[in-house]
Amino acid sequence: MKIEEPTFLVDKNKVIKNIEKMIGRTKHFGAVLRPHFKTHQNAEIGELFRSRGINRITVSSVSMAEYFAKHGWTNITIAFPANLLEIKKINNLAETIKLNILVDSLFTIKKLSDIITHELGVYIKIDTGYHRSGLLYDSDEIGNIIDEIGKSKLLSFEGFLTHAGHTYNAKGKPAIEKIVDDSKKQLTNLKNKYPDTKISWGDTPSCSMADNLNGFDELRPGNFVYYDVMQYHIGSCQMNEIAVAVACPVVSVFPERGEIILYGGAVHLSKEFIAADNNFSLYGYVTKYNETGNNKWGEPIAGAWVSSLSQEHAIVKIPKEKIKEFHPGDIICVLPIHSCLTANLLKQNTLIF
Amino acid sequence: MKIEEPTFLVDKNKVIKNIEKMIGRTKHFGAVLRPHFKTHQNAEIGELFRSRGINRITVSSVSMAEYFAKHGWTNITIAFPANLLEIKKINNLAETIKLNILVDSLFTIKKLSDIITHELGVYIKIDTGYHRSGLLYDSDEIGNIIDEIGKSKLLSFEGFLTHAGHTYNAKGKPAIEKIVDDSKKQLTNLKNKYPDTKISWGDTPSCSMADNLNGFDELRPGNFVYYDVMQYHIGSCQMNEIAVAVACPVVSVFPERGEIILYGGAVHLSKEFIAADNNFSLYGYVTKYNETGNNKWGEPIAGAWVSSLSQEHAIVKIPKEKIKEFHPGDIICVLPIHSCLTANLLKQNTLIF
Repeated sequence: MKIEEPTFLVDKNKVIKNIEKMIGRTKHFGAVLRPHFKTHQNAEIGELFRSRGINRITVSSVSMAEYFAKHGWTNITIAFPANLLEIKKINNLAETIKLNILVDSLFTIKKLSDIITHELGVYIKIDTGYHRSGLLYDSDEIGNIIDEIGKSKLLSFEGFLTHAGHTYNAKGKPAIEKIVDDSKKQLTNLKNKYPDTKISWGDTPSCSMADNLNGFDELRPGNFVYYDVMQYHIGSCQMNEIAVAVACPVVSVFPERGEIILYGGAVHLSKEFIAADNNFSLYGYVTKYNETGNNKWGEPIAGAWVSSLSQEHAIVKIPKEKIKEFHPGDIICVLPIHSCLTANLLKQNTLIF
Repeated sequence: MKIEEPTFLVDKNKVIKNIEKMIGRTKHFGAVLRPHFKTHQNAEIGELFRSRGINRITVSSVSMAEYFAKHGWTNITIAFPANLLEIKKINNLAETIKLNILVDSLFTIKKLSDIITHELGVYIKIDTGYHRSGLLYDSDEIGNIIDEIGKSKLLSFEGFLTHAGHTYNAKGKPAIEKIVDDSKKQLTNLKNKYPDTKISWGDTPSCSMADNLNGFDELRPGNFVYYDVMQYHIGSCQMNEIAVAVACPVVSVFPERGEIILYGGAVHLSKEFIAADNNFSLYGYVTKYNETGNNKWGEPIAGAWVSSLSQEHAIVKIPKEKIKEFHPGDIICVLPIHSCLTANLLKQNTLIF
């Protein structure tokens, strides 16, 4: 592979392993896997799921639903509060595929039932503790929304969906499993109240780690397909399960500073970082790049990391005894902090090998 | 304007005012304005400069140089350490336009002089205190690089270029002017040593504010064309000089939480934030959206701000007495923290009005 500018490398073998492992876990818990495709947003990666029996997917925008519908996906949940301004596109999609949307207010469902023209599945978003979107499980509004859905000939009530994003801040497996238990109690309460509905769960930390995922009808993790440094820090994956890296040209080397400058900045990696304990910001780990061979990158270089990003530059801190090996014109791989954002930025510059 | 999804709004009148003001300041200081086009990366915005007499520009990558060369720009400096892996593209560009590149090592200039095939201007990057790329002004390597350039028939030495990015962390105009003075002393020292060369200066905070920019041959600010919340905080601009905003659909409203959820996340705004004094993270100010009329957005809503971003969602904190005015299906404008990153993310979804 000839790298000239920051390039998103995807190791297909690692992706396949990650997919197959998650399919195995989902089966073990008796749930259906409806993977979130917002991480890769890539039809070719989608085929790796399809050839392993996956036929339902999750996306986070109407435009992503359009993209995957165009690539033959016929059962899609848009796991994002319904955007009333895109109703025309939603109607067009619902005409040709099985489309599910998400609501968390009576206001939205009333508007929707007035303007939809085709059958649409509806999930109610439940906020089990993350406090982004969604209704609390004991909110009166839930019953009102279900009544409103019942009045419509085109809307069908599918069930309750949550995204427990607070697992990202949980420290370790027991804390994550506690979030699963707490959330499951709330969702099961709703399922008992409204039988014949589904409860849909999904976030990569719990889906990768927790042993108590029984009882959910559907799992919707997304990030696991690639993983990243943040998931490694949470404990969702091993370092060698991270399936993506950004190959960046070295443009300057400063041995006396112990720093290397890469062509590869915020417009390639995103400004997501981890505020590490010992008072530094981590924008990615760095590895050597192997132009030939199956493994394009290996273990991170010990003591080296991306310490700062501007629009096009990265500053890599690297031990002085290691820096001698690098010169302008070389390539260094950066393991991204948040692969979803990096994949999105480098859509036009992706190499799957 | 019909907004359906997160859309980058550019107020052309404000852009023109920002451009004309900077042209005036540059003339006042007797320098040439070579604006940095990395902020907008937009041919139409480029024409607003061209029609006001600007014919030299700065970019931060070879691909940006290719884009603007295609749009008729014939004198371009790539203000980024030369990427040896893109030499073929650099040669192609240098064949048709006056191209300047940047080096900060003998290693790179030696490699370059071996492989270039067309005339190329060379600036040496000087690190006057920002400590990203560049050589210190008293480094012996500078003389060696100039000697190496002298040996080449195709390379010509243009002068010394710096980016004093540390003005972004300076507190107030006196601190910024001190950086200008310190840096100018270093660059003037070099100019005295190597007469008939230029010294090129550029960063939006100092170019917008400082009264001591005399003595530079060239100014290369970029962000001023749009400005943003970060520049407002630094003091480079007034709030009403910010020429861009992201129009975002409202998807959920939580009166009891005092929070609104927008369709508009890290993939639209970028994760750049300001860690404000009273322990909160600021990802943008919010304003009402005026569908009709010349001003699409007004002053920020007092006490409201974007407090959190995930891939597609923004959480807006907003006083409870104001929240009643908003419903799903409305539009809210977000003034971005860092307009360069936001413009880059929303390239395909930009409305200039």
